[in-house]
Amino acid sequence: MQLKEKSKARVDILGQEYVLKGSDPTEHLEEIGWFIARRTEEIQMKNSSYNPTKIAVLVCLQLADELHKLKEDYEKILEELKVLDKIHQMDLGMAAKE
Amino acid sequence: MQLKEKSKARVDILGQEYVLKGSDPTEHLEEIGWFIARRTEEIQMKNSSYNPTKIAVLVCLQLADELHKLKEDYEKILEELKVLDKIHQMDLGMAAKE
Repeated sequence: MQLKEKSKARVDILGQEYVLKGSDPTEHLEEIGWFIARRTEEIQMKNSSYNPTKIAVLVCLQLADELHKLKEDYEKILEELKVLDKIHQMDLGMAAKE
Repeated sequence: MQLKEKSKARVDILGQEYVLKGSDPTEHLEEIGWFIARRTEEIQMKNSSYNPTKIAVLVCLQLADELHKLKEDYEKILEELKVLDKIHQMDLGMAAKE
């Protein structure tokens, strides 16, 4: 069996080069890298006095907030899917009896 | 009309105090702050030579990866929900005709 090669992507974030490695496709790694490069630049442009650590931590906090809220939405929709599936089963049961 | 007061939470991340402000409940802001404090500490403990910016950027990259993957799952499940809803409508239509 051939071992799966690791993908690699280089990205510049806050004036520093980062090499991202992983089993995901290179395009995914690049997308992630560019996403963070863009988010840090956005904060840097609005707050030129912030140091790089503060900028990166602020992006961390924003992403954590987005992640937590999306997780909540995800759980809700999963619950909805279960309920809808149960109703669907019940309807089919009733239709079969009619 | 009374203006909604902004919540506030203080958290120490990578040796620096951050004051989080927002319209979400204080508990949510604290949770987000502690989450990032924990994630940065985890990387710091494993890589003692990394500087704070590098640690924060690595957490950014991890979170961006998690966020993108969760978004993909969310889109998929939303699609599933639509299909199930359509099947449900069709089943009901067929049951009504029988």
